[in-house]
Amino acid sequence: MSKVLIFGHKNPDTDSICSAIAYAALKKEIGVDAEPVRLGELNGETEYAVKQFNAELPRLIEKAAPEAKQVILVDHNERQQSVDDIADVRILEVIDHHRIANFETSDPLYYRAEPVGCTATILNKMYKENGVAVSKDVAGLMLSAIISDSLLFKSPTCTEEDVQAAQELAEIAGVNAEEYGLAMLKAGADLGGKSAEELASLDSKVFPMGDYKIEVAQVNAIDVSDVLARKEEIEEALQRAIAEKELDLFLFVITDILNSNSVGIVAGKEAAAVEKAYNASISDDRTIVLEGVVSRKKQIVPVLTETFQGMTK
Amino acid sequence: MSKVLIFGHKNPDTDSICSAIAYAALKKEIGVDAEPVRLGELNGETEYAVKQFNAELPRLIEKAAPEAKQVILVDHNERQQSVDDIADVRILEVIDHHRIANFETSDPLYYRAEPVGCTATILNKMYKENGVAVSKDVAGLMLSAIISDSLLFKSPTCTEEDVQAAQELAEIAGVNAEEYGLAMLKAGADLGGKSAEELASLDSKVFPMGDYKIEVAQVNAIDVSDVLARKEEIEEALQRAIAEKELDLFLFVITDILNSNSVGIVAGKEAAAVEKAYNASISDDRTIVLEGVVSRKKQIVPVLTETFQGMTK
Repeated sequence: MSKVLIFGHKNPDTDSICSAIAYAALKKEIGVDAEPVRLGELNGETEYAVKQFNAELPRLIEKAAPEAKQVILVDHNERQQSVDDIADVRILEVIDHHRIANFETSDPLYYRAEPVGCTATILNKMYKENGVAVSKDVAGLMLSAIISDSLLFKSPTCTEEDVQAAQELAEIAGVNAEEYGLAMLKAGADLGGKSAEELASLDSKVFPMGDYKIEVAQVNAIDVSDVLARKEEIEEALQRAIAEKELDLFLFVITDILNSNSVGIVAGKEAAAVEKAYNASISDDRTIVLEGVVSRKKQIVPVLTETFQGMTK
Repeated sequence: MSKVLIFGHKNPDTDSICSAIAYAALKKEIGVDAEPVRLGELNGETEYAVKQFNAELPRLIEKAAPEAKQVILVDHNERQQSVDDIADVRILEVIDHHRIANFETSDPLYYRAEPVGCTATILNKMYKENGVAVSKDVAGLMLSAIISDSLLFKSPTCTEEDVQAAQELAEIAGVNAEEYGLAMLKAGADLGGKSAEELASLDSKVFPMGDYKIEVAQVNAIDVSDVLARKEEIEEALQRAIAEKELDLFLFVITDILNSNSVGIVAGKEAAAVEKAYNASISDDRTIVLEGVVSRKKQIVPVLTETFQGMTK
């Protein structure tokens, strides 16, 4: 079999990078010529994890087809989140924990989605199913992914399986999950060096919803007011993204990782949909309090999807 | 948890019926209130299997939402092959072995597709993973599904895993797979009592392909000429379906199950696409020889999809 590229979504987060590395390592153990690659720059949190566990940084690719016929997607399936030329390669497998949308193949494939908090939790099972031991450093990377996606086990997406997997992996990696996790999240929440443009694209995903095109970005913060202090330049960045991608709505979510709450900055002509979705009001300063919201996947995307389903342009 | 309905595709085949029964039985064992239902009438082959293994016939439903909020799909995912009101219920799980297309959820789910020959082969694994023993009758039904989908292990879709699962299940069911399988396939190939309308819808699926809408029906035969003798009335049935569903192409495939070959009856304004796809000619009598073709999933749908991808209306 020729080389298989394994990658997570654009604007990669810790799960997208670490699961690509971990799955490629498993594939290599069972004789598949697999290489982990990435579709974007690393955020501060992922950089911290990769450094901590001595991982080789996956290569950045812009297109897949020039170098491989076959790919495996981890941590995503929607085509607009994937490599630009996804239509030109064969998707052999998908390992994911998101909703399924904007995804199509012409042939049968191996598709494994489970409603757990992190792709790495599924990979931990797959290591066992294949009878392959997780190495110390790969265990650390998988643990980092689970801590990142679950916000240290506090997100409503976090399941008993994620907690169990994290415990096993922390033991193999030889770290204290809570201590290491908080340090990693803090490294990611250090947004000081980032431009507004970078903040708006760091962990951002576009979702077609019915007739509408929505972008939702999320940043983690220790102190939300540090980010809100830069609201005006962030809003300018959102407006530029709206014009460039013809978005109907851009919701920029700042998540307080210590208190498990979020504040949204809302831009675009369908801003009122956010008020409707959360039965809350956008303040005069264009922000909205999203009480108890920490998970884009579970507390934002389904809620907005439902709101936009009832609307037509 | 409230009741969960489990069903296969419209115009159900043996895998769709038997996998719904087998998965509901597994779910019940692990404490889920699941009921297998069906979206259409049984064909002769499935009737034979259901009778042979003392199965209670799943209830026919037209809509899911009036009686359940949650459903599990087996043996299909494309919405046009599913229950009409699929958009009104939550899809909890999908267990399937087809390509993924025309499928979308707003929430994460459990999705398990494997590129094997039959859904029942995946279910056989899931019984093991859950530590539940397959009962004698359910084993017979799962065996029937594998024999049906693999045409007694001769289809190119049949994998080593399917053969292995069938061996295990035949032992539990206490039957000889080859003998029982041939009798079951023959029962299905007895098309004498069917109207042309029934032949055209018995095992038929609609596939959107780019800008086009294609229907592909397949019947198994011991003697292909028996079916070809009724070509004119079948063509009339195809034309009625084309008019009613606004199809661009209807390919009616008669598969010689003893010799592993097929003949197609082609109707619709895009008939030439079949010639292009198979690099073969449609005869003056509107039939085309599909040399070595027995699998719609592996030898027809991908080939037509590729052909139509290069075309625009």
